[in-house]
Amino acid sequence: MNDEILSRISALETRLQRVEDELAITQMLAAYGPLVDAGEPEPVAALWAEDGSYSVEGWTMLSRTDVHSMVTSDAHQGLISHGSCHFLGPARVKVTGESATAVCPSILVVHHEGRYHAYRAGANHFRLRRGPEGWEISERITLALDGSEEARELFSDSKFSG
Amino acid sequence: MNDEILSRISALETRLQRVEDELAITQMLAAYGPLVDAGEPEPVAALWAEDGSYSVEGWTMLSRTDVHSMVTSDAHQGLISHGSCHFLGPARVKVTGESATAVCPSILVVHHEGRYHAYRAGANHFRLRRGPEGWEISERITLALDGSEEARELFSDSKFSG
Amino acid sequence: MNDEILSRISALETRLQRVEDELAITQMLAAYGPLVDAGEPEPVAALWAEDGSYSVEGWTMLSRTDVHSMVTSDAHQGLISHGSCHFLGPARVKVTGESATAVCPSILVVHHEGRYHAYRAGANHFRLRRGPEGWEISERITLALDGSEEARELFSDSKFSG
Repeated sequence: MNDEILSRISALETRLQRVEDELAITQMLAAYGPLVDAGEPEPVAALWAEDGSYSVEGWTMLSRTDVHSMVTSDAHQGLISHGSCHFLGPARVKVTGESATAVCPSILVVHHEGRYHAYRAGANHFRLRRGPEGWEISERITLALDGSEEARELFSDSKFSG
Repeated sequence: MNDEILSRISALETRLQRVEDELAITQMLAAYGPLVDAGEPEPVAALWAEDGSYSVEGWTMLSRTDVHSMVTSDAHQGLISHGSCHFLGPARVKVTGESATAVCPSILVVHHEGRYHAYRAGANHFRLRRGPEGWEISERITLALDGSEEARELFSDSKFSG
Repeated sequence: MNDEILSRISALETRLQRVEDELAITQMLAAYGPLVDAGEPEPVAALWAEDGSYSVEGWTMLSRTDVHSMVTSDAHQGLISHGSCHFLGPARVKVTGESATAVCPSILVVHHEGRYHAYRAGANHFRLRRGPEGWEISERITLALDGSEEARELFSDSKFSG
């Protein structure tokens, strides 16, 4: 009897861990937009691994420190002081042991002279890994959905599963 | 052996409860937009506690009854009869025992003469508590992301964690 | 003692299954937008049951094969080659045994001459069922939120719960 019980408990632990991993990553990606619109460099940068990268339309960051600098940059602080909404969609997440991939769409809505405009619609692809203090982004690539093959490729099923 | 088994079962129960709480709150916030665009006052109001508040750009509601009245108001019914989409983003949720906080971005898309416009991009901050019949919103604040410090403050990490 | 243990394990298994079902459906709906913007007919069509339907503003598909044809159509491939973002919001999901319903808002953002426009805001209603290989969409209806009663009805609480 104990063997059956232990095996059912182990199965539950494995399944629940997978659910918790998926939700933890979902929460990280849901945190990015609000934190970057708040303009707070530390909690944004803390989503990335020390050596994590973020490439967005020609702007390439190669470390957590680079992401921190992006948030404090005049360009970003100027954007949020006029009003911006980095709106990421629900993430599709695939956890494979100690690493994970995720994709989601994003819209950057910008406030200008009392009106709001969709400034960019983007494809986002994330690679994450489990670090000693939890999940971290090791790579994020964002490309404008302007018809380019590169942007559509970020959303391909094989890249998500690969 | 039984002690180890009971302790593993208890740990699973605690972890699963936290997951269920997070998902229940995620679901409530995912329900708001569709229900308010359907224009149904009762299920919208039922998301709030009897004494729950909702402050949105100068309109302050101080009870479930006030939220009900907002949905039935000429202003809201006029909006949805022309076509509107209250689009809330994925929520960042933090559960702490019997209370919780959540944040998400929102876009109000309005239909006008055959076209759609982003009428407002907003920052949303929710406080919730566990009531006898489940989670309820005790406070919601929505501010336009127009560059104001007050709106950005709703998205700050310390307010989320506090 | 064993009886109590077995009953607690069974309760956990039932609760975790419900959580996994809800997340599996959430993930399917989060996958639709990226896959359809990637323009990949097979993984999009695989979200539907063999006899699943998809009705969107006068375009009615009555099978997985029809959904596949929509993705490969000149209309859709033309849309994504200019740049599009099918942005679905967080889904409200209700699982009842072997079937489920879900609703979410959607915005279709289109790229045109260097700018982005919200081309349509829609109400989405899904019916799903558990198949031998997992959840499948048996019916999806999408209607523009242009003020029509039909679109708002897709978001009504009774239709979601029914």
